[in-house]
Amino acid sequence: MRARKKLNIGLVGYGFMGRTHSNAFRKVNNFFDVAFEPVLKCVCARDGAKADAFAKQWGYESSETDWRKLIARKDIDLIDIASPNDTHADIAIAAAKAGKMILCEKPLARNAYQAEKMVSAVKKAGVANMVWYNYRRVPAVTLARQLIGEGRLGRIFHYRAKFLQDWTISKDLPQGGAGLWRLDVKVAGSGVTGDLLAHCIDTAMWLNGPIDKVTAMTETFIKQRKHTLTGKVQKVGIDDASAFLARFSNGSLATFESTRYARGHKALYTFEINGEHASIFWDLHDLHRLQYFDHRDEGKVRGWRSLHITDGDHPYMKNWWVPGLQIGYEHTFIHQVADFLEGLDTGKMPRPDFRDGLATDYVTDAVLASAKSGRWVTVKKPK
Amino acid sequence: MRARKKLNIGLVGYGFMGRTHSNAFRKVNNFFDVAFEPVLKCVCARDGAKADAFAKQWGYESSETDWRKLIARKDIDLIDIASPNDTHADIAIAAAKAGKMILCEKPLARNAYQAEKMVSAVKKAGVANMVWYNYRRVPAVTLARQLIGEGRLGRIFHYRAKFLQDWTISKDLPQGGAGLWRLDVKVAGSGVTGDLLAHCIDTAMWLNGPIDKVTAMTETFIKQRKHTLTGKVQKVGIDDASAFLARFSNGSLATFESTRYARGHKALYTFEINGEHASIFWDLHDLHRLQYFDHRDEGKVRGWRSLHITDGDHPYMKNWWVPGLQIGYEHTFIHQVADFLEGLDTGKMPRPDFRDGLATDYVTDAVLASAKSGRWVTVKKPK
Amino acid sequence: MRARKKLNIGLVGYGFMGRTHSNAFRKVNNFFDVAFEPVLKCVCARDGAKADAFAKQWGYESSETDWRKLIARKDIDLIDIASPNDTHADIAIAAAKAGKMILCEKPLARNAYQAEKMVSAVKKAGVANMVWYNYRRVPAVTLARQLIGEGRLGRIFHYRAKFLQDWTISKDLPQGGAGLWRLDVKVAGSGVTGDLLAHCIDTAMWLNGPIDKVTAMTETFIKQRKHTLTGKVQKVGIDDASAFLARFSNGSLATFESTRYARGHKALYTFEINGEHASIFWDLHDLHRLQYFDHRDEGKVRGWRSLHITDGDHPYMKNWWVPGLQIGYEHTFIHQVADFLEGLDTGKMPRPDFRDGLATDYVTDAVLASAKSGRWVTVKKPK
Amino acid sequence: MRARKKLNIGLVGYGFMGRTHSNAFRKVNNFFDVAFEPVLKCVCARDGAKADAFAKQWGYESSETDWRKLIARKDIDLIDIASPNDTHADIAIAAAKAGKMILCEKPLARNAYQAEKMVSAVKKAGVANMVWYNYRRVPAVTLARQLIGEGRLGRIFHYRAKFLQDWTISKDLPQGGAGLWRLDVKVAGSGVTGDLLAHCIDTAMWLNGPIDKVTAMTETFIKQRKHTLTGKVQKVGIDDASAFLARFSNGSLATFESTRYARGHKALYTFEINGEHASIFWDLHDLHRLQYFDHRDEGKVRGWRSLHITDGDHPYMKNWWVPGLQIGYEHTFIHQVADFLEGLDTGKMPRPDFRDGLATDYVTDAVLASAKSGRWVTVKKPK
Repeated sequence: MRARKKLNIGLVGYGFMGRTHSNAFRKVNNFFDVAFEPVLKCVCARDGAKADAFAKQWGYESSETDWRKLIARKDIDLIDIASPNDTHADIAIAAAKAGKMILCEKPLARNAYQAEKMVSAVKKAGVANMVWYNYRRVPAVTLARQLIGEGRLGRIFHYRAKFLQDWTISKDLPQGGAGLWRLDVKVAGSGVTGDLLAHCIDTAMWLNGPIDKVTAMTETFIKQRKHTLTGKVQKVGIDDASAFLARFSNGSLATFESTRYARGHKALYTFEINGEHASIFWDLHDLHRLQYFDHRDEGKVRGWRSLHITDGDHPYMKNWWVPGLQIGYEHTFIHQVADFLEGLDTGKMPRPDFRDGLATDYVTDAVLASAKSGRWVTVKKPK
Repeated sequence: MRARKKLNIGLVGYGFMGRTHSNAFRKVNNFFDVAFEPVLKCVCARDGAKADAFAKQWGYESSETDWRKLIARKDIDLIDIASPNDTHADIAIAAAKAGKMILCEKPLARNAYQAEKMVSAVKKAGVANMVWYNYRRVPAVTLARQLIGEGRLGRIFHYRAKFLQDWTISKDLPQGGAGLWRLDVKVAGSGVTGDLLAHCIDTAMWLNGPIDKVTAMTETFIKQRKHTLTGKVQKVGIDDASAFLARFSNGSLATFESTRYARGHKALYTFEINGEHASIFWDLHDLHRLQYFDHRDEGKVRGWRSLHITDGDHPYMKNWWVPGLQIGYEHTFIHQVADFLEGLDTGKMPRPDFRDGLATDYVTDAVLASAKSGRWVTVKKPK
Repeated sequence: MRARKKLNIGLVGYGFMGRTHSNAFRKVNNFFDVAFEPVLKCVCARDGAKADAFAKQWGYESSETDWRKLIARKDIDLIDIASPNDTHADIAIAAAKAGKMILCEKPLARNAYQAEKMVSAVKKAGVANMVWYNYRRVPAVTLARQLIGEGRLGRIFHYRAKFLQDWTISKDLPQGGAGLWRLDVKVAGSGVTGDLLAHCIDTAMWLNGPIDKVTAMTETFIKQRKHTLTGKVQKVGIDDASAFLARFSNGSLATFESTRYARGHKALYTFEINGEHASIFWDLHDLHRLQYFDHRDEGKVRGWRSLHITDGDHPYMKNWWVPGLQIGYEHTFIHQVADFLEGLDTGKMPRPDFRDGLATDYVTDAVLASAKSGRWVTVKKPK
Repeated sequence: MRARKKLNIGLVGYGFMGRTHSNAFRKVNNFFDVAFEPVLKCVCARDGAKADAFAKQWGYESSETDWRKLIARKDIDLIDIASPNDTHADIAIAAAKAGKMILCEKPLARNAYQAEKMVSAVKKAGVANMVWYNYRRVPAVTLARQLIGEGRLGRIFHYRAKFLQDWTISKDLPQGGAGLWRLDVKVAGSGVTGDLLAHCIDTAMWLNGPIDKVTAMTETFIKQRKHTLTGKVQKVGIDDASAFLARFSNGSLATFESTRYARGHKALYTFEINGEHASIFWDLHDLHRLQYFDHRDEGKVRGWRSLHITDGDHPYMKNWWVPGLQIGYEHTFIHQVADFLEGLDTGKMPRPDFRDGLATDYVTDAVLASAKSGRWVTVKKPK
């Protein structure tokens, strides 16, 4: 086991993502032999009582109610942004200026305009940075990347991805407020496009390269909802559903779709990629499996292989249990922290970094623009 | 068992579809108690030797080499068109003029222009007519229609369909000629749009009503192929892949995709429909199953139900075996013949008729137009 | 296409199995190029009206009400026995004496004592004979046999089979009479042991060789049922459930189980075989699929392959449709007829023949004996 | 959040189970609001260096090399036994005498003789005790227990369980030594019977009540293996495979099977229970799903429901993430610790306790005895 340097964490946000990140910091050294040890130094939230409760539950040494103070503290090495989308840009830019490392929840920002500024800030400051597109580090997804990287699929013809949920179908669900800020366009920036499709796009570009152009449609099925904060019935500004066709730079065609109105699906993120020689399919509801088809198999015994990604030669899995015993959702965050800490040691920083986050924001911006114009839109690419 | 009147069949074409239709005519009375008995009177094909061999194998009483002669015969009640797409219009219009009933393979024609003329012809002649969109009569699909018709899904939000194959990936596959006319745009009219998406569209409009507008993309991955008939390498005119976004008249959103370049899929026709209360999923590779999710189920035991469509209370199944014993692809054609014969008796003709076939051709025409223009295209509707 | 000799069929029984067999005789020449053509000459049933109706529905030329007369007819080449178990022995022995070929429904007889006499009779008469253990000719099962025959599995360690149904759970179901003779021990001989386990045993010995010894338990959950014929509530003599452990001659271990009290399963016949190098799994509810695992696959992409048995290089499938389009239950009977007719031409008769049927009856007898004694019982083998 | 009392843990063993237990102690307070806080006080292992490394990786405050010393320490409240089977009895009895609470890995002992003494010891000492049969606390399994407890299944007819692995097929695998003590009969007591079937039996009796009698067979496929400790090729004393038939006290029938020679299965623990009204199926390879069939569903939409056990109304799940996001194997141990700590607070101790562990050992002893004698063996029950 390696000697470990301390890395002091300052977390902003105490919600769902505050929990997944904290768990990752807390567990990483039990399972991964890395050269750094995250120390849960401080959690920051506007509501002091909640911050304190969270600190107690997770073992944070202290709390703050103003993120500016958190950034100003000398004993903080890394700012972890787990607060709603509309706060990302300000916090990240300030943290960069203060020379802090930054881990930022996805999407990087409410739009590419903000994201560009964030990329500039971290570039200028030269600080380590990553975006929490955690699904890259589901072992099955990482394996998919390896298989594609090894050229097993040959020329790629098709990519298709979906992220289907059903939790906002009720008309009585309010918008805004704790746990519901994803329905408030001012906070979230967009609906499923930024929340769910962003995940699909990040994975897709990682697996299959840049997207050149898109044509899209969006829909808001429930036009008005009561706003929790104002107490009034207000127009809903987010997209409830979003779908687009795309062409990748490598010549392959794609369909993407996301919705919160697909009855029966809780968090069904799926992707499939079809190549000349082989195809891959994955879905988040059975995240420990990868479906793989290889046309080079002998004809009469050729079929889709259901890989149970729990073996020692599968990505990350030698660090966990024994073959056949599955891990779950939370582990993707642990893997990201492990890779980040390893990067700090080797100097080769892992991805997705802020620039990758911006690339995804360019696609989501193009999707929203196309849905408005009804035209194909060319996707901007990060410099 | 009812008394049965004879119904004399004249089949045009002896290929794959000639076999599925002949089998249906030959088996229907063993399993369905209907008032008509199809008699395999004559098969017609340009190649007389092949026509004779087919007649012998299937028990046709005679053969012809000119479809005009077939239509002229007094002893023929019904013309069944199972020849390539470019022959449908001429044969059907002539048959209608001669007062014959007509069953026509899908797509109804190479394009809506031809299809309009065919609809006019059967309307004017007042002859019974149907198109062989056989998948409506997979018992699982018919059940889906029933469940939707009973209002179980509530307001519909989403429809998605795919038809994925992988049999034309090889560059060495020629275009044109026996078994390969589907790759020759002059014969087929289009590629996967008319061949595969047409199926998806027919089912979709049957289940979910008319489609208002579409935006599409198509691609021809292999640009040139040797033509079997000319012996020359020629430009490929068909679409290898076709995808589109759509909006239905009922406000629901849709994605459709079809390709012959999806490695690992032989004939993977799938559709899913998401309603306010329930969702349905089906796929052709396991055609005897229907996936059904009902949100009204008690929460902790709520999940997708895998229905094994082999019970007596499932559509068509009381005519077959016992629960648990599945039927296959060919039975869909038998069901169509059974329904057609029943319609002749009751006077209530079943669908899809030529008008429905035209409606689908309007959509495929719009898809091809949109793929060319890059714009949303409004879909024409049959009068 | 080959020239075809006529083969005149005399069918005894008009129930479920009468239909599957008739369908097979009627369709075989449409799909298989064999040297014989079955002619539906005569159907025999005690109830003359029912025999006539069946004859009309299926195209039998004539009917009889006494099987002895049927056997005496000169114009009958083959006696097909599709009547209840207690009639098999008498009919088969008489048919053999009359020099008729015989196809007999499974199980061969009510017990091995009867079956031994039947084997002697056909042996002495030298007539072609087969038992309708149709599941051997599900293409997926036939492929399993091929893969095992090619040595792909290596040394076999385990075999396990189940046949689960749920149709007799209701206490109100009567025993005996039309469609219910399987619940009457005098007619059936036993319950699930002879009806369902017999299928599992036939397949098992075909795939994995002879069974040496067994230890078993049986149960009759509903002890008394009204008898349809007597109108009285009577003791139920059949086994509702039957399970046994076994050792095969090749050293492998097995578990077998069958019941009509497994809620949720209609006809779930499954088997799995585990070898040193590879394993195979199949189930009747998705009969067109075979699950195959090969340990020699590269580690990180090793998994169970779901084979969709619809390709031209899969057994029997080049005679049907195109890849991806599944066949069903009834086709297994067509395959058996095709193989039988081919055997008549080549002189190499296919199996299972009566001797194989006897071998299975020896196992079921041993199972019932062990369930009574509570001891391991050695299985007799046919000479 | 409740105030928490400290509970000082002394762990014996640092292997696979040492890790799962330590992780559980370390995480429980982050996710469950219980009145105790486990403190990782001391880890004990014969090899001091390994104990120290483990202590560092997991945050144990100290280490010991002699478990007697650990038990003697005043600052230890609870002894957690995660060392090989042959050590359980001595450690547990000594710990009980010292008044320590005890958590013991399964199986409780090498045989029921030892287990009886352990039960007496904890009873006499009146100390809290549990056995780590962790699979009871897979949320899907806990839900199965709830559904059965609510009477949803009605009268039970069948139970079947399997635990299939394939990791010892190679002849070159040695027996004994680190990580391989499960192959050494002196340490393990038995092979798959105590290691894997014990899990199946514990769950089965929890779900379906006591087992009355069994008939079994076992097999050792590889008769000799090199022993790591002696360096010599020695007779293998464990059972590689074990299967038995059983009758439960409630009249239901069962089949159980376990092996390490089922190619293609890593840790495929499955169980199915069939009742008059409903059935349940679960498997460890997709542990976050439960298959449920309810015959009371309307006929035409009746089918097996695939429940994705990630909702707030599923056992334990409101403490984790959001619907659709699965947890894994390690969480079962956390649940057990949470329940144990809750029990300490309420005084209602959760199960399985040592007496339950003894009940399972009685069954495994009966299985091994039956395999030897070839007879049905009546299972002893704890007083």
